[in-house]
Amino acid sequence: MSERAYKITVIGAGSTYTPELVEGLIDRHESLPVRDLTFVDINEDRLQNLTEMARRMIKAADLDFTVTPTTDRRRGIEGADFVLNQIRVGGQPARIRDEKMGRRHDVVGQETTGPGGFAKALRTIPVALSIAADIRRLAPDAWMINFTNPAGMVTESLLRYGEIKVMGLCNGPYGTQVQIARVLDATPERVKMDVVGLNHLSWVRTVYLDGQDVTDRLIDMMVEGLRDHDDSFDASLIANLRMVPSGYLRYFYHQQDVLAHQREGGKTRGEVVWEIEQNLLEQYRDPELCCKPPLLAKRGGAYYSTLAVSLVDSIANDRQDVHIVDCRNTGAIADLPDDVAVEVPAVISGHGAQAITAGHLPWSIRGLVQHVKAYEELTIEAAITGSERAALLALLNNPLVPDWSTAQALWKDILEENADYLPQFTRGREAVTA
Amino acid sequence: MSERAYKITVIGAGSTYTPELVEGLIDRHESLPVRDLTFVDINEDRLQNLTEMARRMIKAADLDFTVTPTTDRRRGIEGADFVLNQIRVGGQPARIRDEKMGRRHDVVGQETTGPGGFAKALRTIPVALSIAADIRRLAPDAWMINFTNPAGMVTESLLRYGEIKVMGLCNGPYGTQVQIARVLDATPERVKMDVVGLNHLSWVRTVYLDGQDVTDRLIDMMVEGLRDHDDSFDASLIANLRMVPSGYLRYFYHQQDVLAHQREGGKTRGEVVWEIEQNLLEQYRDPELCCKPPLLAKRGGAYYSTLAVSLVDSIANDRQDVHIVDCRNTGAIADLPDDVAVEVPAVISGHGAQAITAGHLPWSIRGLVQHVKAYEELTIEAAITGSERAALLALLNNPLVPDWSTAQALWKDILEENADYLPQFTRGREAVTA
Amino acid sequence: MSERAYKITVIGAGSTYTPELVEGLIDRHESLPVRDLTFVDINEDRLQNLTEMARRMIKAADLDFTVTPTTDRRRGIEGADFVLNQIRVGGQPARIRDEKMGRRHDVVGQETTGPGGFAKALRTIPVALSIAADIRRLAPDAWMINFTNPAGMVTESLLRYGEIKVMGLCNGPYGTQVQIARVLDATPERVKMDVVGLNHLSWVRTVYLDGQDVTDRLIDMMVEGLRDHDDSFDASLIANLRMVPSGYLRYFYHQQDVLAHQREGGKTRGEVVWEIEQNLLEQYRDPELCCKPPLLAKRGGAYYSTLAVSLVDSIANDRQDVHIVDCRNTGAIADLPDDVAVEVPAVISGHGAQAITAGHLPWSIRGLVQHVKAYEELTIEAAITGSERAALLALLNNPLVPDWSTAQALWKDILEENADYLPQFTRGREAVTA
Amino acid sequence: MSERAYKITVIGAGSTYTPELVEGLIDRHESLPVRDLTFVDINEDRLQNLTEMARRMIKAADLDFTVTPTTDRRRGIEGADFVLNQIRVGGQPARIRDEKMGRRHDVVGQETTGPGGFAKALRTIPVALSIAADIRRLAPDAWMINFTNPAGMVTESLLRYGEIKVMGLCNGPYGTQVQIARVLDATPERVKMDVVGLNHLSWVRTVYLDGQDVTDRLIDMMVEGLRDHDDSFDASLIANLRMVPSGYLRYFYHQQDVLAHQREGGKTRGEVVWEIEQNLLEQYRDPELCCKPPLLAKRGGAYYSTLAVSLVDSIANDRQDVHIVDCRNTGAIADLPDDVAVEVPAVISGHGAQAITAGHLPWSIRGLVQHVKAYEELTIEAAITGSERAALLALLNNPLVPDWSTAQALWKDILEENADYLPQFTRGREAVTA
Repeated sequence: MSERAYKITVIGAGSTYTPELVEGLIDRHESLPVRDLTFVDINEDRLQNLTEMARRMIKAADLDFTVTPTTDRRRGIEGADFVLNQIRVGGQPARIRDEKMGRRHDVVGQETTGPGGFAKALRTIPVALSIAADIRRLAPDAWMINFTNPAGMVTESLLRYGEIKVMGLCNGPYGTQVQIARVLDATPERVKMDVVGLNHLSWVRTVYLDGQDVTDRLIDMMVEGLRDHDDSFDASLIANLRMVPSGYLRYFYHQQDVLAHQREGGKTRGEVVWEIEQNLLEQYRDPELCCKPPLLAKRGGAYYSTLAVSLVDSIANDRQDVHIVDCRNTGAIADLPDDVAVEVPAVISGHGAQAITAGHLPWSIRGLVQHVKAYEELTIEAAITGSERAALLALLNNPLVPDWSTAQALWKDILEENADYLPQFTRGREAVTA
Repeated sequence: MSERAYKITVIGAGSTYTPELVEGLIDRHESLPVRDLTFVDINEDRLQNLTEMARRMIKAADLDFTVTPTTDRRRGIEGADFVLNQIRVGGQPARIRDEKMGRRHDVVGQETTGPGGFAKALRTIPVALSIAADIRRLAPDAWMINFTNPAGMVTESLLRYGEIKVMGLCNGPYGTQVQIARVLDATPERVKMDVVGLNHLSWVRTVYLDGQDVTDRLIDMMVEGLRDHDDSFDASLIANLRMVPSGYLRYFYHQQDVLAHQREGGKTRGEVVWEIEQNLLEQYRDPELCCKPPLLAKRGGAYYSTLAVSLVDSIANDRQDVHIVDCRNTGAIADLPDDVAVEVPAVISGHGAQAITAGHLPWSIRGLVQHVKAYEELTIEAAITGSERAALLALLNNPLVPDWSTAQALWKDILEENADYLPQFTRGREAVTA
Repeated sequence: MSERAYKITVIGAGSTYTPELVEGLIDRHESLPVRDLTFVDINEDRLQNLTEMARRMIKAADLDFTVTPTTDRRRGIEGADFVLNQIRVGGQPARIRDEKMGRRHDVVGQETTGPGGFAKALRTIPVALSIAADIRRLAPDAWMINFTNPAGMVTESLLRYGEIKVMGLCNGPYGTQVQIARVLDATPERVKMDVVGLNHLSWVRTVYLDGQDVTDRLIDMMVEGLRDHDDSFDASLIANLRMVPSGYLRYFYHQQDVLAHQREGGKTRGEVVWEIEQNLLEQYRDPELCCKPPLLAKRGGAYYSTLAVSLVDSIANDRQDVHIVDCRNTGAIADLPDDVAVEVPAVISGHGAQAITAGHLPWSIRGLVQHVKAYEELTIEAAITGSERAALLALLNNPLVPDWSTAQALWKDILEENADYLPQFTRGREAVTA
Repeated sequence: MSERAYKITVIGAGSTYTPELVEGLIDRHESLPVRDLTFVDINEDRLQNLTEMARRMIKAADLDFTVTPTTDRRRGIEGADFVLNQIRVGGQPARIRDEKMGRRHDVVGQETTGPGGFAKALRTIPVALSIAADIRRLAPDAWMINFTNPAGMVTESLLRYGEIKVMGLCNGPYGTQVQIARVLDATPERVKMDVVGLNHLSWVRTVYLDGQDVTDRLIDMMVEGLRDHDDSFDASLIANLRMVPSGYLRYFYHQQDVLAHQREGGKTRGEVVWEIEQNLLEQYRDPELCCKPPLLAKRGGAYYSTLAVSLVDSIANDRQDVHIVDCRNTGAIADLPDDVAVEVPAVISGHGAQAITAGHLPWSIRGLVQHVKAYEELTIEAAITGSERAALLALLNNPLVPDWSTAQALWKDILEENADYLPQFTRGREAVTA
């Protein structure tokens, strides 16, 4: 249907994920022809490294689209058809500080869930909104696809305040689909999932194989499997819940185990990723390398290439097919307000993502989702207004923060550790420190 | 994906529409292989006629699925994979009586809108529910596709009380899509419509061409066209409404013209169709005829074949694509209760139709939709319970019935004219005739 | 509790109702001490007449609060504690023109319902909002009580856009309570009513006598009474509806009778009132008259004095008692948006009116209420923005306007007849006259 | 208004609270004349003790209503006008076991909040429903006032499944009102509170003094006071929250302090109350004692007499005044379903409690309320069905239970400790113990 070739701009292109994305664009170049792939990053060294890596991959595929690196975000965005946002404000070091801060206070220290995700949201949302401001001015018809975590809150702030076309994407649900397919001994395409919830806080309520409800069978098989090898969730939890939880729900459902493990010390996930990334960046420098290296699989972004490019393709070609994305609720989940972001199956077409109606959440998950959404609203408010009051109340509302004294202590720490990345809180202080 | 061949049962197969459907099944036999096509009708002559016509068509297409005629509904339903409901309780004569009753009381006399549609609902809903009862017992996994009018109310009563898998289909929205495509000089496939409302009471809020919003341009073009040739709606109405109304909205928006035209006498639409049908049935008897005759196009069911078979195919092959159907609201239209039927774009897969979120209706149509929905609820209640009180209150709530005295007079007439088809009202009379 | 004396300002004090109000204030002066009663009107003659009448009444009651007449609205509002709004933009002549316009087009011609109420809303809402602007500046803590019709739409526009403390009051529900008490042979105080709906579009769902539900008994008695003497509603209507409708519902439920009566010609209600008013104004000029004359009872504002003053008293003395008022819905009626005005029992205290939860409307009235509310929203939009498109769509959505051609014809007439009172539509014309 | 004298039945009349109640009935005997006060209890000794105490009080007041003790609940309920439910299934010993179980698992061990409240709900709800069954049969017009904790869940189960007239009452909000009045140096009557939430999980959003909003002033004064003497909440918490939380919110907001205090050992609140009660029961045996002794004030039911009797009086005399009670939500709190119990200001009349609309909860409390409500729904389901799955999921959803392993351990303990009181779980075990 589409006859044009696109300008696709990647913000944060210095990410080690980028070759995944390039591979995806190469694979789908027939239905999604690329004119120019613009790479934006503030780290010149990584920008150059990834640009060359991408060019080698494209050349090896015998394709001819250009890769344009730039540290000037505005120039990069100008005239783009799609803007892929994969920034990480403060880099892995900021993430590692978040993780360690959690450990210090004996609460879950994690990238996107708990106080770590809170700190990341405060650092990231203002930058995401400034990117949106550039898009409004320089590429007002462009679609932004946001992968930056915490993807739910970042996407919601863009949906509410960005005044651009945007949807958010996470590879988590597809990971679950692959896992379920494996249990059912089927290809992922034969599996359809009724997923409900928020980003990193979602559950598969019903599983269909070739259109038939196989949830009970699947749950029984999963429980059987977990009984032998209890690696993520207790068999008894799944047996009672009778839904498939996102892996991130481990931080809630098995909080004590997570804390016990944290107390043992050892490297944080951020530290592990950091080492993998240094190694990957080194590999990318190899002028002989022209396809993504096996190590990338350990980085954690499995299926990123497939999903992101497939989503762009659905928009570009007005496909009206179903993807699980982060989008405006608009009544899809009856227990949440209309204007918040949810992670549910949505129809993707040239005019965006429309959530499919999901009805009421079961009581067994409704309260947690609503509680976390309240925390998210307060976090977004804090990120945008720089209100310490909102920040403190956000932390108080995070179910992984046990109480007010912990919230206060965490907030003191977060402010200090992120001084360079939270200008909104130093400009005008309205917090009440009674 | 699917490897099995299906048993498809058509209730009311003596309809002159049936060759449309057969053509559709022939065209799509590769993705939707049919094992047996069972024809059920209470009219043996028409059943035989259509069965032979269908067999000739299938043979001419060099296909081998059987056509099994039966007047025993239960036998016909037993083991079916799909049950297509296209009954007409009381036949065209009952419809013609409805139309004439409207004329007598100087209110809109029409098949599905106004008091005619009310009478048809009372005749049809109990029969539809008895078909559902057969399906529950004899083909519990079958999907019913309901085409029988008033499709919204019949489908809603099945969704609420039928305890079967069911969705409703109307060819109206696709007709509108074809019309819009013609105005835009594009193929219908390039057009996507944001349709909202109820069956025969819907509006296209937004029109997309290749994913781009072209509503304003389209409305301007339509207004221009209507100014020259005002055949359905006043140009000024469309110019102010800025949406594309279903053709049936003419009965509301141009009620005075409709009444003036009625007062002129002349044949009713039912009488015209009746003649066409007699002619068609005669043609079908021709042992040489093995494809649908041109006259069928005048019968009024354009695209029926494409739409119905495509819908069955989406279910059978778990396609997860978008069709405009009559299905459970579940919050799709925020201004209506969850458990009513609406006509909106929905995702069709092996597990059914899930409405896509549509948000709030604009105020310019919200009240009318809510008013008609209240009328529909009361009508369904009357049809099921045989409550004359509900029947009278339903008529009072139909916006085409001016007031209580008209409602009373109409009800008296409807009861008399439909004595044979409304046993629920004669069994136990609870109406209050103060 | 309260020890202060109040300044109460009456806008439109030249109304013949005013002695009612003065009587009420005299009767309740102990709990509601008045410091100054300021009368504002644009008609100096009537202002003077009513001022002197009021002074005589106060003197006869041996009270000492001042009556201050002024044609300067701002001066009148300055420092007020309560502002009672009883203006009539265009006076009775404008109302009479509205009534006659209805007759010309053979639609209901009435002060507040149908196109007459629509025209009145367009004339009145901008003036009400300009009074609100004065209050914001000159008496920001004042409460406005709005009696001006159409009280529902005027109050809603003030609630939404006035940024003042406001509630609306209509004497209709209390009139119904008195009527019901009479049927039950009880004092009105023993009767409690579960009233739901909008101003002039409400129903008593349940009637309690000394706390006991007596609805069925009451309905049966009313039906019996109506059978003998069918003066307002058909006995059969009430028998089936099983609720007590507001008298104004006659325009919907017995539209044909109303139209038949209109066609007979005869004086309009406005013309009758006009004559009574001239007579009353003449009586008020009598320097011997120091209490309200019997003729006032025919004017139509029964109980106005009791209700208005009692409401002011509840606010002034923070009584937290229940009155039926026009106030923000906030979920009281589940089938309407939060921010619209409804007419329901509300708790009145020093901080205003809070609606009591009423749940869902029965289907037998839900659709009509929602339809009329849609019409009201479009009317308010038209009144404020001067959008002819909104005006036309509002008329199209009034259930008493049969269709688009009637809406167009009415709008042409309304604009012409009210040229002096609708500056918002002549300043900037955006209507589409295709 | 009322001329009859009432039969009031107290279930659990052996409670040490009972003299409070008797005092209240004596004080208000003019507007609420009592014919017979029936005392029901399963403990004959306490029943006799309290009966004699009550008789002495009534005699001392020179009144003549009878006190009828009985251990036969059915006889006690027969013909009652009001049934006051103040049972404690398992008595203080069960409560003390709940508290200690909390301590063992290092989670909050408390009567109504956390897993203690959960165990109490499971013991109590079936008994409350069996009382309702008796009322349906033997006193179908009676009103039940429930004081039994956890009052929110017990009342909700009665509202949903009891099929009787019922509302719940807690003295907590009035205690807060008295406290606020003290800070404002005013009588409680001058204070009105906008309270929202659930029983033992509520906040005063706005405080009015003589109808004026004084929230900011009050909060500032409270913060000042707390800075000097931090006895319940941190000053900084109140300063940021800017609402007045129920004292029970300390278990959430200062969970760590509560746990630290628990770890110190010492008597539980139940043990303290137990001793007070033994002492009180001893005092009640004194044939000279004819008024409630000072020690009762330490028992914890302050204002119980005033509130309970005042509520009964409002119903009996159809007062339509405002009380803060536990009643059906029906949209009062927009963020909760219609059919759950909430604790909000409601209008009390002869036909019951109707919640006043409260709109949306602020985000700072919304999530916690919704989370606890989900826990409550699952708890009620478990209590009624005896589903271990519901029980486990309820515990998992209690924000004071950190995770699944804790939920499992608690459940095991609760089942063992309450074996005699949880027949619903031993009759048919459907839990999944993977």
